Amino acid sequence: MSSPEIDLAAVREEYAALAAEGLRLDLTRGKPSPQQLDLANGLLSLPGGDDFKAADGTDCRNYGGLDGLPELREIFAPLLQVPAAQLLALGNASLTLMHDVIAHALLSKVPGAERRWVDEPEVLFLCPVPGYDRHFALCERFGIGMVPVPLTGEGPDLDAVEALVAADARIKGMWCVPKYSNPSGESYGDETVRRLAAMPTAAPDFRLFWDNAYAVHHLTDKPVELLSILDACAEAGNSDRAFVFGSTSKISHAGAGVAFFGSSAANTAWLTGLLAKQTIGPDKVNQLRHVRFFGDAEGVLAHMELHRELLEPRFAAVYEVLDRELGALGIASWTRPEGGYFVSLEVPDGCAAEVVRLAKEVGVALTPAGAAFPEGNDPRDHHIRLAPSYPTVDEVHRAMRAVAVCVKLAAAEAAAK
Amino acid sequence: MSSPEIDLAAVREEYAALAAEGLRLDLTRGKPSPQQLDLANGLLSLPGGDDFKAADGTDCRNYGGLDGLPELREIFAPLLQVPAAQLLALGNASLTLMHDVIAHALLSKVPGAERRWVDEPEVLFLCPVPGYDRHFALCERFGIGMVPVPLTGEGPDLDAVEALVAADARIKGMWCVPKYSNPSGESYGDETVRRLAAMPTAAPDFRLFWDNAYAVHHLTDKPVELLSILDACAEAGNSDRAFVFGSTSKISHAGAGVAFFGSSAANTAWLTGLLAKQTIGPDKVNQLRHVRFFGDAEGVLAHMELHRELLEPRFAAVYEVLDRELGALGIASWTRPEGGYFVSLEVPDGCAAEVVRLAKEVGVALTPAGAAFPEGNDPRDHHIRLAPSYPTVDEVHRAMRAVAVCVKLAAAEAAAK
Repeated sequence: MSSPEIDLAAVREEYAALAAEGLRLDLTRGKPSPQQLDLANGLLSLPGGDDFKAADGTDCRNYGGLDGLPELREIFAPLLQVPAAQLLALGNASLTLMHDVIAHALLSKVPGAERRWVDEPEVLFLCPVPGYDRHFALCERFGIGMVPVPLTGEGPDLDAVEALVAADARIKGMWCVPKYSNPSGESYGDETVRRLAAMPTAAPDFRLFWDNAYAVHHLTDKPVELLSILDACAEAGNSDRAFVFGSTSKISHAGAGVAFFGSSAANTAWLTGLLAKQTIGPDKVNQLRHVRFFGDAEGVLAHMELHRELLEPRFAAVYEVLDRELGALGIASWTRPEGGYFVSLEVPDGCAAEVVRLAKEVGVALTPAGAAFPEGNDPRDHHIRLAPSYPTVDEVHRAMRAVAVCVKLAAAEAAAK
Repeated sequence: MSSPEIDLAAVREEYAALAAEGLRLDLTRGKPSPQQLDLANGLLSLPGGDDFKAADGTDCRNYGGLDGLPELREIFAPLLQVPAAQLLALGNASLTLMHDVIAHALLSKVPGAERRWVDEPEVLFLCPVPGYDRHFALCERFGIGMVPVPLTGEGPDLDAVEALVAADARIKGMWCVPKYSNPSGESYGDETVRRLAAMPTAAPDFRLFWDNAYAVHHLTDKPVELLSILDACAEAGNSDRAFVFGSTSKISHAGAGVAFFGSSAANTAWLTGLLAKQTIGPDKVNQLRHVRFFGDAEGVLAHMELHRELLEPRFAAVYEVLDRELGALGIASWTRPEGGYFVSLEVPDGCAAEVVRLAKEVGVALTPAGAAFPEGNDPRDHHIRLAPSYPTVDEVHRAMRAVAVCVKLAAAEAAAK
């Protein structure tokens, strides 16, 4: 990408004017806005009164119920494409579940494993990039090596993935955000799902860490229909290949939701056997609260439409400013995701960190450049993750104007060197 | 113990009559009764309305707040004898915290450790007996060897403990339920706390797993005052020795409470560094709910008096029946705990499993004999844990009458052999 049309002196002036505005704006994290959280304020008074009995008579206030409330699992089973009998409703964060499942795999053999992962000389995970920084942080925390593989726009580069997992038994896992991926927004096509389910792997205990974080987080009238990974794995004769994760974090209240784990019967039995030592049961009252609030799967989908009404104008503000300020320049490109929480902005190679620095200088916080890559290392230094959900529409407008100026300035300065 | 006064034929008749009653009673687990849970039903409608802001303005509904709500930590700090700054308010089960802290110690060096516990050839924990079966289950789950040490009535046999930890660097931990211990009911005296804090240990990374599960669970007007283990450790120059655990499980709702971790600044920083990868934050709405319900530490103590009113008659029923049925026979002894959830019943050596079997035959479920010992192995087969909290007073009476008959029958049959 080149920047023939940018007048460096003019853009320097624009930037200086920005600095004088004293902005304090933040596009760093994919957090729901207060307005989105308000949508679920009914939860704050639920289950209410003396309502504490589950459908089967269980007293949700007391100990027990390792698998989570059956009626909540029924609601989320179709949404997460996991049979309710193989779907566990657990604590308040799927990140914790992913962490704990890795810790369990390190310390107890997963079904099909020859040994515990901690007893392997080396464990590697495939990391489609750009990806979710907290996935990569888990690998770092556990000493798991990360092998980046490129995303193509409809999922990971499968030729690369298939070659790697077929050849290297050290590769035990692969991070996948199959729908409205963080941060690229892309979704895995049917062929992608099928090939991931069917590909031969050198490791007998290879697992797809299928983080379906945005299963119902649509931004259009035509929701993406993901193929069921558990079905695809079963059809391919690799029933135990996928660990599915999901949560209500961006559905109800981010800090007070319910997380889910779904997998084959064997994997689910493996995890519940370990969970039985770790806990006497999850917070069933919070699960009942969610059952009372949503009622059924349709209730969840209707609720997500309310989220969409709040999110769409914020995403629109991002596109509007980028189109206007950068559309004609040919120095940047960006995604227009059909769901999820992020826009990926690509700037000229070597400019992303400089854009983030320039933005910070004028009061606009962006996710650190490289955050979407293992160890924070974007080899081309060209990717920036934009998270427009939390600020107001006006704030998104103002922040994005600043970002656009910073992109122009960084590109022009680089071109002038 | 001998049983000269038992008429075997008569007690056989008594037992046959019991069988005809068709009892279905359960004294197995230390679960709060529905009446106890009712005491905290206010939580079911809290925080209510639009109440979601913490004292510092934090929106409890959103992500964040790794350490837990400051105001909840302030309430429980004096009750758990941990400075609020070193007390973390986390998920809904202290069992999970204990599990996770061991997993973290296996996979990441605790402060002062030479290596991760998983890299040690062998890790052992001291297990005062009788003790809590779920502690022992954690050791089994993680392949940690258990070394039983006897309890004396005011804590573990310190001469034995001191000799073991001084000589054996494999001993990395020790389970302690320092107040109203599960199941013996005993509390650690000041001298016990001081010696545990000060004793030289061969392992530089030895930890006391201080499960203060019954910190405020008094059954008398004169609550036991435990010495602060963190203060004692600091005074002895072993600041990092103790991991303190506690929870509201038997204060608010057993299945929907808040768990706490407290320790030295260094240990707390170690854990929060790892928690930062495992979670974005605990369920702060549930923590706010507890703040609104209890108000302050006095509120918690007042609430525990209401629990006591419900528990005392159940414990009294146990003593009444045992005194009347077995008091004069000299074949059994039992504790009269000043707090907690259990009565320890000691029967003639070799008879505990038979008592449990006989009780089961007539419809009274007891905790398996040996459950309070590592690997379920009570070498003398003489200890039975009674948990009278859950049944009604009348049910406790009837269950204990059956237990008393079973004790007499087992003892008489054994004596007749």
